[in-house]
Amino acid sequence: MSSTYGTLFKISTFGESHGPAIGVVIDGCPAGLAFDTAFIQTELDRRKPGQSRITTQRREADEFEVLSGVFEGQTQGTPIALLIRNTDQRSKDYSHIAEQFRPSHADYTYQAKYGSRDYRGGGRSSARETAARVAAGAVAKLLLQQQGVQIQAYVSQVGTLTLQKPYQALNLALAEENAVRCPDPETAERMFQYIDDTRKRGDSIGGVVDCVITGVPVGWGEPVFDKLHAELGKAMLSINAVKGFEYGSGFAGVELYGSQHNDEFYTDDQGRVRTKTNHSGGIQGGISNGEDIYFRVAFKPVATIMQDQDSVDVHGQPVTVSGKGRHDPCVVPRAVPIVEAMAALVLADMYLRNKVAQVAGAAQHAEKEAGLL
Amino acid sequence: MSSTYGTLFKISTFGESHGPAIGVVIDGCPAGLAFDTAFIQTELDRRKPGQSRITTQRREADEFEVLSGVFEGQTQGTPIALLIRNTDQRSKDYSHIAEQFRPSHADYTYQAKYGSRDYRGGGRSSARETAARVAAGAVAKLLLQQQGVQIQAYVSQVGTLTLQKPYQALNLALAEENAVRCPDPETAERMFQYIDDTRKRGDSIGGVVDCVITGVPVGWGEPVFDKLHAELGKAMLSINAVKGFEYGSGFAGVELYGSQHNDEFYTDDQGRVRTKTNHSGGIQGGISNGEDIYFRVAFKPVATIMQDQDSVDVHGQPVTVSGKGRHDPCVVPRAVPIVEAMAALVLADMYLRNKVAQVAGAAQHAEKEAGLL
Amino acid sequence: MSSTYGTLFKISTFGESHGPAIGVVIDGCPAGLAFDTAFIQTELDRRKPGQSRITTQRREADEFEVLSGVFEGQTQGTPIALLIRNTDQRSKDYSHIAEQFRPSHADYTYQAKYGSRDYRGGGRSSARETAARVAAGAVAKLLLQQQGVQIQAYVSQVGTLTLQKPYQALNLALAEENAVRCPDPETAERMFQYIDDTRKRGDSIGGVVDCVITGVPVGWGEPVFDKLHAELGKAMLSINAVKGFEYGSGFAGVELYGSQHNDEFYTDDQGRVRTKTNHSGGIQGGISNGEDIYFRVAFKPVATIMQDQDSVDVHGQPVTVSGKGRHDPCVVPRAVPIVEAMAALVLADMYLRNKVAQVAGAAQHAEKEAGLL
Amino acid sequence: MSSTYGTLFKISTFGESHGPAIGVVIDGCPAGLAFDTAFIQTELDRRKPGQSRITTQRREADEFEVLSGVFEGQTQGTPIALLIRNTDQRSKDYSHIAEQFRPSHADYTYQAKYGSRDYRGGGRSSARETAARVAAGAVAKLLLQQQGVQIQAYVSQVGTLTLQKPYQALNLALAEENAVRCPDPETAERMFQYIDDTRKRGDSIGGVVDCVITGVPVGWGEPVFDKLHAELGKAMLSINAVKGFEYGSGFAGVELYGSQHNDEFYTDDQGRVRTKTNHSGGIQGGISNGEDIYFRVAFKPVATIMQDQDSVDVHGQPVTVSGKGRHDPCVVPRAVPIVEAMAALVLADMYLRNKVAQVAGAAQHAEKEAGLL
Repeated sequence: MSSTYGTLFKISTFGESHGPAIGVVIDGCPAGLAFDTAFIQTELDRRKPGQSRITTQRREADEFEVLSGVFEGQTQGTPIALLIRNTDQRSKDYSHIAEQFRPSHADYTYQAKYGSRDYRGGGRSSARETAARVAAGAVAKLLLQQQGVQIQAYVSQVGTLTLQKPYQALNLALAEENAVRCPDPETAERMFQYIDDTRKRGDSIGGVVDCVITGVPVGWGEPVFDKLHAELGKAMLSINAVKGFEYGSGFAGVELYGSQHNDEFYTDDQGRVRTKTNHSGGIQGGISNGEDIYFRVAFKPVATIMQDQDSVDVHGQPVTVSGKGRHDPCVVPRAVPIVEAMAALVLADMYLRNKVAQVAGAAQHAEKEAGLL
Repeated sequence: MSSTYGTLFKISTFGESHGPAIGVVIDGCPAGLAFDTAFIQTELDRRKPGQSRITTQRREADEFEVLSGVFEGQTQGTPIALLIRNTDQRSKDYSHIAEQFRPSHADYTYQAKYGSRDYRGGGRSSARETAARVAAGAVAKLLLQQQGVQIQAYVSQVGTLTLQKPYQALNLALAEENAVRCPDPETAERMFQYIDDTRKRGDSIGGVVDCVITGVPVGWGEPVFDKLHAELGKAMLSINAVKGFEYGSGFAGVELYGSQHNDEFYTDDQGRVRTKTNHSGGIQGGISNGEDIYFRVAFKPVATIMQDQDSVDVHGQPVTVSGKGRHDPCVVPRAVPIVEAMAALVLADMYLRNKVAQVAGAAQHAEKEAGLL
Repeated sequence: MSSTYGTLFKISTFGESHGPAIGVVIDGCPAGLAFDTAFIQTELDRRKPGQSRITTQRREADEFEVLSGVFEGQTQGTPIALLIRNTDQRSKDYSHIAEQFRPSHADYTYQAKYGSRDYRGGGRSSARETAARVAAGAVAKLLLQQQGVQIQAYVSQVGTLTLQKPYQALNLALAEENAVRCPDPETAERMFQYIDDTRKRGDSIGGVVDCVITGVPVGWGEPVFDKLHAELGKAMLSINAVKGFEYGSGFAGVELYGSQHNDEFYTDDQGRVRTKTNHSGGIQGGISNGEDIYFRVAFKPVATIMQDQDSVDVHGQPVTVSGKGRHDPCVVPRAVPIVEAMAALVLADMYLRNKVAQVAGAAQHAEKEAGLL
Repeated sequence: MSSTYGTLFKISTFGESHGPAIGVVIDGCPAGLAFDTAFIQTELDRRKPGQSRITTQRREADEFEVLSGVFEGQTQGTPIALLIRNTDQRSKDYSHIAEQFRPSHADYTYQAKYGSRDYRGGGRSSARETAARVAAGAVAKLLLQQQGVQIQAYVSQVGTLTLQKPYQALNLALAEENAVRCPDPETAERMFQYIDDTRKRGDSIGGVVDCVITGVPVGWGEPVFDKLHAELGKAMLSINAVKGFEYGSGFAGVELYGSQHNDEFYTDDQGRVRTKTNHSGGIQGGISNGEDIYFRVAFKPVATIMQDQDSVDVHGQPVTVSGKGRHDPCVVPRAVPIVEAMAALVLADMYLRNKVAQVAGAAQHAEKEAGLL
């Protein structure tokens, strides 16, 4: 198992869905960052269950405790440990699946790989683990905000219902105004009904989360393997239920000719090198180019449904798995802060890694020079 | 820059497009593997330029030399260094872009990040670097073949022209029979014309490569961050020109209900736990489940086109970039062995990492047990 | 800061001396290990303060809580988080040094590197952090015990008082029978007096801890950089107050001729390849050779003394630092379990890493073969 | 095997003693460093064999080729590959040991761990590998020189013959004036005779290398695990034949009382915080404190001797190993540049890592502030 992520801004998450607690240790957050606990709690609240009738009814306060790394309101350069106690574990809801493999869950693969598994609520494979990511991501966001970087994700698709506007035509701030987290109020309402109808039928449905990042300067990303979009892709694909990732023009871009797809350069009136279009999604050669970073993440329908399904038990015998427990009929509304958190963790790491790209503080110099070109 | 990839089967690539050589050091290949140099050369030949009129006319023999790590035909557990000399560098073709930023290339971002760049043929950002990946990937393939794992990629889309059959309906071996590497001969012919027409117009076009991996046992993948599909996604996105990655049902899967999407389990006549469908693409909870692994990779149109484009120079002044140099009008035919190589590197690493999942060689035991369930 | 150690058996420690808690996350412990909480507590008890009048009088129960990774008494392959609350933090004891740099402490370097510091009891630089190492090391010991590996450290020197017997002439189990942890009772008594006399004078004194590891099979260690003794050395030198490390013949070995120093091989009556002498300390070429592993660790006198010392404050002004707070007059008795814990962490990692040295489980094969040679 | 070292300034070495070549890839050297090939060659010349009659008579020019990463005389931020061809491999000298285990060599452990070995000249376990380290270390030195850091090692002991002066009383530049690399000419002459006498008897002898590093600013080192001295220790212990490492007061320091050992602070006339003594060896809490860094490295007698020794063969049968091949009777003269190279690699990495210790370039700020205190 690898629950450690990052090269310089490094996190280690821990915890099972129905164990005593989940949490995260951040090793490598620079010293001198004002530690805004209220902001971190707000981010956790955005992810927490029970926000509306289209999310799971599990009740978790998701209040966190700072165990280390902060003194007199500032980070110390030492590991920051954040702890979230589990409080509403109805483990008995899961006793019926102790010996069953739920379809499209990780029950079977965990059992085979590790020889046993904590079956209560999916154990370590539960999306509950992402609360720790959101807490760590909030710290990363604090670091990035200081650099002028803003991250905003939103729901752009639920099932077959697609938001037809590009992000530039939307007021992304509106995403937080509704339960679906779609910035177009009318589409949001239709998505809500779509999800609620699905829920009533005991079924689940997939969706897409788009993410826009502004304010990233030229130079973040570490080719050839740790390209900015490659790390963003890995980070997103590591989130539960994600099936696809694309950035900039993405899969649709393959249909274009190079003469249509290329982003021509120009110099803006502040002397900054810019591109006329942004099919590159803000990243060229694996390095941010100063334009908005834009990517999309596909989430499958949640595997837990309130319907009977065929399966096998741990002895290979046929069984019928009955839907029980609490779950989300569609994961994307709560996935929005998780996508943002993972993006923040990637960017914080890349921000720090870029500091050593050139000798003698030349990275800063290059940024300046880039602006002057 | 990070040119190192892998946790246990670790590679470090080096080299610029027009420098003396490119190459790779593999640190962590187990000892005792028969080192099949002919096979490795065959893999390099699949990627090398000049294979047909729809690939770049640069002439590189891409013959490699083994500098270390192999003795009496076997790997020794020591680093394996493979060297490929560059021979056909027409650097003067590139002198005109020493001070220009080619649209949608990495010229601008490298210049900004590093303060200078080797502009000859894109320097380090050139896809020539992928020859080193293919060489290393061939070694990984040798390791995987011993475990019964086979990797086969193919072209499924060029521009708007899409292969309409699922991989199960295709004879994938036919992919190597034509210049496009599409296993459907009739579609391959149309794709060839599509690309050749694009080439004649001095333009480029995108495409999609699908990849199928068979024979992976249950248990490969290291959640929560190094999920098998997350590492595959990162590896693919680290390849030049890649804009998207999806596995199993991918982006299309978001439109399905959970009741449609879930892969129900059954026990086959050999007592193995199997799934009736494979929307999961062979991976559940980030761990292989014994089914075929299936994913798709989107490639943008190549940025180099034989047309004039607006841009700026290193001083920020407007310039017209004229298309020169040799290039591929469509990257996907040559991308097929690169996709396979990166998949092989990911899987070799995951194979080794899985060996320590349980105490006392229990991983092997678990695999057996999984089959017996 | 780097509070993460290990390649496969990886730990991340956190916590400051006077913060809410200290702890550790173990990422990479194999699944299926019986988790013996009583044993772990016993190890923590060996390190905890207040064991006799020659150790610090700080009172910490050092009881730990398992937050994750264990289910039904077994490790799950998931991260194991262990938490130890701080209870006896008399932070006000330290307010007088908020603006002072104590000589030979980390006050000045932390302040300069991080721009601020948690001055209470040394904050992160306090040896209290080693409790987390001992907890993690106890888990590593459980893994190693299963492999037949035993680790025993003891005090061999206090100040100028040296234990004159080699480890082979000692009953190492006696080390745990006295407060000094010297396995020779008569020497232990003299060491106790030495330390107690030092304590009464308000001074401190250094010492040496020797460590013997039995039962390690041939093959552990990863040259050329992660040689077994190199990792042991790093691990020991990362412990507070350590100034030197040597293994086998160590510094004294430089005086020997090769003809005296070389360990000649022979085959024992069980057919195992053995060495007649063990100047190599059980390690040749960075890899264990099946003999006892033996190394020694030098600890400086504790920096905290109950005497006035010249120093400067954070403004660079001269100050007199007065000895206050609770401390150990000699660190080696409590360092014994810390040395063992770090050795266990190194060996657990090397054990796992060795599993992938050869293809197809050949490491086990090689061990067998080595025995048969 | 792990032939990769470093977190940000990362190297991967490769090559066997009698293979086609040895070399190194440096991944993470910042861009913009003037690449002084003559200096690098000079460093290799300091290490190369055949310098006098007290070093091995193997003849290697040790000329290196730059394969990548340098353009127009400057590093590009891309991987720097350096290649050194082996030219004087008399492999037939070693055929007699193909089936023998030479005492105190790595023959037996490599054979057991990897199932086979390249027996020619020790293969990968040969100290020939250190040429690659010296080449990489020379690049690290170039980076450090720009920061005002100087590294000078020298021989302080051969067998029982010890240089009786502290480094402060020596003109270290004199070390390069004689074949032994001892900065005291009279002692150097005696050491030369000592080694030459040993050589004539077909024997070998150990020695100690001391190393002094000046100009390191406050703040380098990454506790709690990657303390500066812990990384230096690991780096030194990874060099062939090293048996011990100590820094500052080292093993001798354990005999002192805290009141003697503590380094009191004062402010010098330039306003810098300094210590009156330097028992700390320039490192406190694992972080450089601005004083000279000082450490010592113990090397055992070379295992190859020109005498018959008892041993066993790969079948476990008794054999007599006869001394053949070319070797050094005492390794320390040629070890001096290796010690320096490894120190340079550690420090270059720590220099880069320290750049991210604080937010907003605060590390530089802190250094300034530290000077102002």
